[in-house]
Amino acid sequence: MSERQTLRDLENAERFADRHIGTIGDHAPMLDALGYHDLEALLDDAVPAAIREKLALVLPPAASEQQVAVELRALAARNEVRTSMIGLGYHSTVLPPVIRRNVLESPAWYTAYTPYQPEISQGRLEALLNFQTVVEDLTGLPVAGASVLDESTAAAEAVALAHRSVKKGTVVVVDADVLPQTLDVVRTRARPLGLEVVVHDLDRELPDGDVFAVLAQFPGASGAVRDLRPVIEAAHERGAQAIVAADLLALTLLTPPGELGADIAVGSTQRFGVPMGFGGPHAGYLAVRSGLERQLPGRIVGVSVDADGAPAYRLALQTREQHIRREKATSNICTAQVLLAVIASMYAVYHGPDGLTSIARRVHRLASILAAGLRDGGVDVGDSALFDTVTAHVPGRADDVVAAALAAGINLRRADADTVGIACDEATTREHVEAVWRAFGVDASVDELDAQVDDALPGARTTPFLTHPVFHEHRSETAMLRYLRRLADRDYALDRGMIPLGSCTMKLNATTEMEPVTNPGFAEIHPFAPAGQFEGYAQLIDDLQTWLAEITGYDAVSLQPNAGSQGEFAGLLAIHDYLRAQGQQHRDVCLIPASAHGTNAASAVMAGLKVVVVSTGGEQGEIDLDDLRAKIAEHADSLAAVMVTYPSTHGVFEDHIGEVCELVHDAGGQVYVDGANLNAMVGLARPGKFGADVSHLNLHKTFCIPHGGGGPGVGPIGVREHLAPYLPNHVLQPDAGPSTGSGAVAAAPWGSASILPITWAYLRLMGPDGLAAATGAAILGANYVATRLGQHYPVLYTGAHGLVAHEAILDLRGISRETGVTVDDVAKRLIDYGFHAPTMSFPVAGTLMVEPTESEDLRELDRFVDAMIAIRAEIDRVAAGEWPADDNPLVNAPHTAASLAADWSHPYPRELAGFPAGVDPRSKYWPPVRRIDGAFGDRNLVCACPPIESYA
Amino acid sequence: MSERQTLRDLENAERFADRHIGTIGDHAPMLDALGYHDLEALLDDAVPAAIREKLALVLPPAASEQQVAVELRALAARNEVRTSMIGLGYHSTVLPPVIRRNVLESPAWYTAYTPYQPEISQGRLEALLNFQTVVEDLTGLPVAGASVLDESTAAAEAVALAHRSVKKGTVVVVDADVLPQTLDVVRTRARPLGLEVVVHDLDRELPDGDVFAVLAQFPGASGAVRDLRPVIEAAHERGAQAIVAADLLALTLLTPPGELGADIAVGSTQRFGVPMGFGGPHAGYLAVRSGLERQLPGRIVGVSVDADGAPAYRLALQTREQHIRREKATSNICTAQVLLAVIASMYAVYHGPDGLTSIARRVHRLASILAAGLRDGGVDVGDSALFDTVTAHVPGRADDVVAAALAAGINLRRADADTVGIACDEATTREHVEAVWRAFGVDASVDELDAQVDDALPGARTTPFLTHPVFHEHRSETAMLRYLRRLADRDYALDRGMIPLGSCTMKLNATTEMEPVTNPGFAEIHPFAPAGQFEGYAQLIDDLQTWLAEITGYDAVSLQPNAGSQGEFAGLLAIHDYLRAQGQQHRDVCLIPASAHGTNAASAVMAGLKVVVVSTGGEQGEIDLDDLRAKIAEHADSLAAVMVTYPSTHGVFEDHIGEVCELVHDAGGQVYVDGANLNAMVGLARPGKFGADVSHLNLHKTFCIPHGGGGPGVGPIGVREHLAPYLPNHVLQPDAGPSTGSGAVAAAPWGSASILPITWAYLRLMGPDGLAAATGAAILGANYVATRLGQHYPVLYTGAHGLVAHEAILDLRGISRETGVTVDDVAKRLIDYGFHAPTMSFPVAGTLMVEPTESEDLRELDRFVDAMIAIRAEIDRVAAGEWPADDNPLVNAPHTAASLAADWSHPYPRELAGFPAGVDPRSKYWPPVRRIDGAFGDRNLVCACPPIESYA
Repeated sequence: MSERQTLRDLENAERFADRHIGTIGDHAPMLDALGYHDLEALLDDAVPAAIREKLALVLPPAASEQQVAVELRALAARNEVRTSMIGLGYHSTVLPPVIRRNVLESPAWYTAYTPYQPEISQGRLEALLNFQTVVEDLTGLPVAGASVLDESTAAAEAVALAHRSVKKGTVVVVDADVLPQTLDVVRTRARPLGLEVVVHDLDRELPDGDVFAVLAQFPGASGAVRDLRPVIEAAHERGAQAIVAADLLALTLLTPPGELGADIAVGSTQRFGVPMGFGGPHAGYLAVRSGLERQLPGRIVGVSVDADGAPAYRLALQTREQHIRREKATSNICTAQVLLAVIASMYAVYHGPDGLTSIARRVHRLASILAAGLRDGGVDVGDSALFDTVTAHVPGRADDVVAAALAAGINLRRADADTVGIACDEATTREHVEAVWRAFGVDASVDELDAQVDDALPGARTTPFLTHPVFHEHRSETAMLRYLRRLADRDYALDRGMIPLGSCTMKLNATTEMEPVTNPGFAEIHPFAPAGQFEGYAQLIDDLQTWLAEITGYDAVSLQPNAGSQGEFAGLLAIHDYLRAQGQQHRDVCLIPASAHGTNAASAVMAGLKVVVVSTGGEQGEIDLDDLRAKIAEHADSLAAVMVTYPSTHGVFEDHIGEVCELVHDAGGQVYVDGANLNAMVGLARPGKFGADVSHLNLHKTFCIPHGGGGPGVGPIGVREHLAPYLPNHVLQPDAGPSTGSGAVAAAPWGSASILPITWAYLRLMGPDGLAAATGAAILGANYVATRLGQHYPVLYTGAHGLVAHEAILDLRGISRETGVTVDDVAKRLIDYGFHAPTMSFPVAGTLMVEPTESEDLRELDRFVDAMIAIRAEIDRVAAGEWPADDNPLVNAPHTAASLAADWSHPYPRELAGFPAGVDPRSKYWPPVRRIDGAFGDRNLVCACPPIESYA
Repeated sequence: MSERQTLRDLENAERFADRHIGTIGDHAPMLDALGYHDLEALLDDAVPAAIREKLALVLPPAASEQQVAVELRALAARNEVRTSMIGLGYHSTVLPPVIRRNVLESPAWYTAYTPYQPEISQGRLEALLNFQTVVEDLTGLPVAGASVLDESTAAAEAVALAHRSVKKGTVVVVDADVLPQTLDVVRTRARPLGLEVVVHDLDRELPDGDVFAVLAQFPGASGAVRDLRPVIEAAHERGAQAIVAADLLALTLLTPPGELGADIAVGSTQRFGVPMGFGGPHAGYLAVRSGLERQLPGRIVGVSVDADGAPAYRLALQTREQHIRREKATSNICTAQVLLAVIASMYAVYHGPDGLTSIARRVHRLASILAAGLRDGGVDVGDSALFDTVTAHVPGRADDVVAAALAAGINLRRADADTVGIACDEATTREHVEAVWRAFGVDASVDELDAQVDDALPGARTTPFLTHPVFHEHRSETAMLRYLRRLADRDYALDRGMIPLGSCTMKLNATTEMEPVTNPGFAEIHPFAPAGQFEGYAQLIDDLQTWLAEITGYDAVSLQPNAGSQGEFAGLLAIHDYLRAQGQQHRDVCLIPASAHGTNAASAVMAGLKVVVVSTGGEQGEIDLDDLRAKIAEHADSLAAVMVTYPSTHGVFEDHIGEVCELVHDAGGQVYVDGANLNAMVGLARPGKFGADVSHLNLHKTFCIPHGGGGPGVGPIGVREHLAPYLPNHVLQPDAGPSTGSGAVAAAPWGSASILPITWAYLRLMGPDGLAAATGAAILGANYVATRLGQHYPVLYTGAHGLVAHEAILDLRGISRETGVTVDDVAKRLIDYGFHAPTMSFPVAGTLMVEPTESEDLRELDRFVDAMIAIRAEIDRVAAGEWPADDNPLVNAPHTAASLAADWSHPYPRELAGFPAGVDPRSKYWPPVRRIDGAFGDRNLVCACPPIESYA
């Protein structure tokens, strides 16, 4: 009691930053290992003085976890949860609590990475295979991917896919009854590519023009269920592809698109248990007929075998993905919506075909009764067949009806002054139907109409679906719980140990950050809810835009892009549109360094730009300034932009970033700084202040949204003032962007709004000091690892003073040449040691890129370094000939428990295989399969993306 | 679409009961295997007609999960969360979110069973060892148990312990500054034993009398921190034991009881992160000086080694527990508070000694500043040293002050009309202190006083605590998350597979049932909050009492007992008090069948009754009616009661239960039916209607409260009208029981109130039909297993038509005699097959008792049966001499992965050891240790309790 502490000292004793930053108490020995006395000196050496800002960020001071939880609950309470009957692709749904708690609220699921290392991802790969099966069975198409970002971007991707496959034509005909937000996104994406979007009543003959695709909504936004056979046949007669945007729940009752002859189906799986969340995230789907599978954007899970011949899942057909297809890339999709796809698939697993059908029938019956009651009451509801949505024509009365319904707690869709839409869903009850009748001034009886009204859907489904046992074996909550645990247990996620993936920033996703996601005040809000019902979201979005602008040094921020790739597209589109507005539409060249993420180039192509590669090299792996000058000179008149990552993808703070910006600006181009590596800069440097015009950020990297096993992500963009008029906007929500904006790049006005509280919480918890401290710790951690490992594996690039930024590239090419041991072998052997591999072969083939992040503690950093050193010693034994190149613990890794129990003829003992140094037998993670056969051309590219030289 | 379904059909399609009852879709093949055509016929044969009721229960009809979630949120909202400064042993505390989500909300922790099978319980055993270390270090005493029920029962247990150890004396001196509820419980427990409780100001000399123990509160209920050395010395001079009820948080700053010379310390660990929850559950603690460890009630975790010599945890010193000590039993403790002890221990792990000290200092500083401000403002706050609580003397003004504070949202303690208590805690802020000043009409400045007031505690702590690395290594949230996952992964709980423990009813703990527990409206309510602030709890408690009375056929129900053992004691005490009121105090004999749970006898002794054993036997294992008649005749004048379990602990519906009741009633005795097996009766038969006078129920068995790895439990009692005046009541809460009641049996008025929503939700979700269906399915499942397994292992007892009730005893005695393979071997071998063992050697040594419950599905039942059959085949190979008796897969079980990787010289292959038939290698559960050395006398008794013949 002798050392007196004041209350103020004691009040500040518990800071969240001390929980977030793993090494907080161990900086001294780490700095010691680097030969520094304090962190500030290290940062002074690591970060170029020219970009370093010493001003503290102007953000609210850090708040405690309890305080932030209270504030978030208050924000949630300012959103008004109403019964939503708005529809338009977003429906109330019941997420079974067992799935909510054991998937959406389980770190084992939400902290996992994309399953590029399939041996330690078998659980989520199985769940995704289930997802594909659900989509394939319900759409009647043979191949579906493992989710895309939302229905509207799925439709835009389908249009691009159709254009790729048809290889001719410039016109896409879009159903007049399409979802408005889908039309918006399709138009945004078609414009830079020079494609024409023609909106058309599909009951009439197709319009003239060089049509390559027809997009039909099924059922339509109005609720109408049309017979699509004639329009699909007409499309095919014109040599065009038929795309159907279909509601999966309706497809339990209706003849599926595949049986109608459609080439492509797209849609949302939101109503399979995923909360509306003010617009997202949800998993979109995309399925194609046979013959188009190699054109399918996004990821596909396939079944393969492991080294013992046991079945195993993996990502399939990766050679068709944008990071392989290079100059032919027409999609930039990287992040998917894995966590949400898992939820939707588990909803189907839990309900099975009978349960889904029963829900669909109930929804349909309520809608039929609702329509009949309105019709009997003299309201014009048309005579279309319908599934769940009724459109009522009430000339001049729409506002009154909507207001009356709202007074009863129900949101209807005000389509226009004369038209009201009413969508039934899983949460709709007979009481809701009666309340809607009252809002229309109609008096009717549910029971009476139930006895009178027949189900009447044209083209009722006759084919079975979800016949696989998995959709029949987990009907009790107990069985479901165990299935979820069993799958989770097969996977390695952040809750087991470090995931040192360079460029992916796998850091803590704190519980306090995650808890708001399932708060009904955030989860149960329709994205098109009337103004005034989402004041909490409005405040949170406003705060976040302000704070992210402050952190990045930009003037305006858009939160709409729901993945990094979409942010890239939106940012480049802003440049494209700005140049056009300046009369500089001839400027269409985008310079991209050879070391860039593959998506950069793909996004540039989507934004109507031509990619010109600038070479990189030198000791820092830096942009070759001579080549840059040459390329600028060569494309002087057509230079649109340069797109660079900073710190570079080589993990280095390049000294001359300011010069790069200046050269491009001087030549009339814009500067795009990819924010993938922002975790090395928050609180130290701001791209908007050191020369960049636009950046996208990855909230799922630097700002603590979990990776979810491969999504969701959020990819907001920040821009300087001159680009602000060209940010995304939204057809249904004027507040979502400037009226001069570039159109919607995602289905929802603010993209994946329901996970924005995660980032809001992170910033609120850390405060300006905590954020800067985290950046410092991330840089310290990377340099500590680089220094300790550098004695065993060459570190490929370093900046000034031999320091790296927040990640380090270990060069194994020499080792591989000498010993035959590859980066794959090291990556798989790390599994035996209880680790996820670093990023493999990006941005340089034959290397491993390590990013420890600030959240790992010194114990874990050392455990990783020690494992890598032990592996190096194993490599040396191969090199020494002690073990043959084709039979050693590296090439045989990973080892399963089953393989240890089987016959054993390897030249090394079982213990060494399964329990190498440092592995606690009581805590051993066993992969469920051995190395998976890569015969289908898999390449484990992680955050991905091989060199893009071929764009040149 | 052809088969037309009405809306009503479709609305009823999704019933919770269909999710709870695993076999719901598979009854036909199961009945087929039993030779029955329908379930009703089976039940007619299994349940004696004399007790079977065909009337449906009068309960609310089943509601959907969403509906129940809405209702529970509405109930929670009717409780008013105020800032609590009431104190009295219950404090606001901050449960770190990472612990809330990953322990309290994690099925891996809350669905685990008591760690009687230590090989598959290493995770929670480590957490409990941490708990013991926390208690030992902070109290300064060398041996602590792994939690008891609450502080007040801990104090009563300590008094009994002192009495046992001193072996003389009848007077316990209790501090006048003791918590009121502790005094209440100590008095209740002392009364039937004839011990005298003398309340005394410990500043004065000890009173005369034959004192065997002194109980001091530290700090006192008033907040005063006294120097306890003099009273401890005085107690020792009188040959009495010194018991200190101490606040663990205060002990981070104060000299601990052990250093002061105390023999025993007791207390609560609630304020280590466990929500107040309107009174519970929380973990009480009990620690003793060296020499008393064999007297310690409850469980102790100890370190041992496994078959490979690796360290391993296990329950230690079990020979001192009531189920071993038999006639010497003076404590009946069975269930502990494991889940809450885990939380408290993890709170200490996360904060470490520095963090705990910092919290304590902040609390103390706020209290010191508060007191100084009041004193400066002219309020009499005495001059005692204090830790966190200030007692203000405001003659005649207490109500006004309390009302003024409440107007500011703060609850103070109204001790009496002149006295107000104010307790600071982890959640207290300077703003609270200022608001309290205002309520007293005082104007002061926190900052000014902070500068003036010194910390001033007598006997400041000088010894270090929590020096073990575990309290220093998990300081970041990432590290903490991984530690929690690592421990959870070592354990086997219901989320992995079946736990077929006879008598323990390990069934589904549904997420919808669990979610309310962490709702602040239930979690953040102080048990002594003013009336009107807990309307939601009042309604829920009223509903639950009504519903449980209906289900059991009793007239009144008390929810206060916070474990089955406490229910037994309360029920027997009601009999004891009733007889006394009738002038029949000479009646003190309690007849107990030989097959009874050991706790029955222990509880009878605690309630002042003498145990007389009645023999059991015959084909049904039934009570020997001739012996019963003889014992009744022998004790005609002194017969107080009979205590029977129904259906019997032999798993059979005994036909003559009615006759047993009649015989005892005719002899003037009361009938106690132990409700442990109520899962076989809900909706089919009601003890209150077939002859019983009182029963306790186990809400953690039949009514879905999870076992939590060994608690919490809730053990309410139901009584017929004549016993209702003798139910428990509570000194601080008149509504908690009859004014004529027996006193408090738990610290809190309604015991473990915060988990009552689980049972409420279960009853609301199932409805009367669902409950009856569950009972039917439980009986069907047990008979299905018995029939399939009966061909391989003899089923020891069956009732009419060869049927069992809801569990079945497999008799391995013959097998053991012939082959040397024991029930232990089979139990451990089941781990290799991926199962938790059935109940071992209860109620008959050398047997296994299997209770599948209704929540397992047919697939899991068959998986278990198939495993048991495969094990039988392995036994046959031992019998055939193929494998030696001392080296076979059974005697060596369980096998760890490490043991498979090591040298192997066993006569059976590794694959057979680790991957026996039916085990999916991808989903294999590996125990972290091999069989644990039982040298310290462990016996795996599960729900426990060897035969109690020796009571005779």
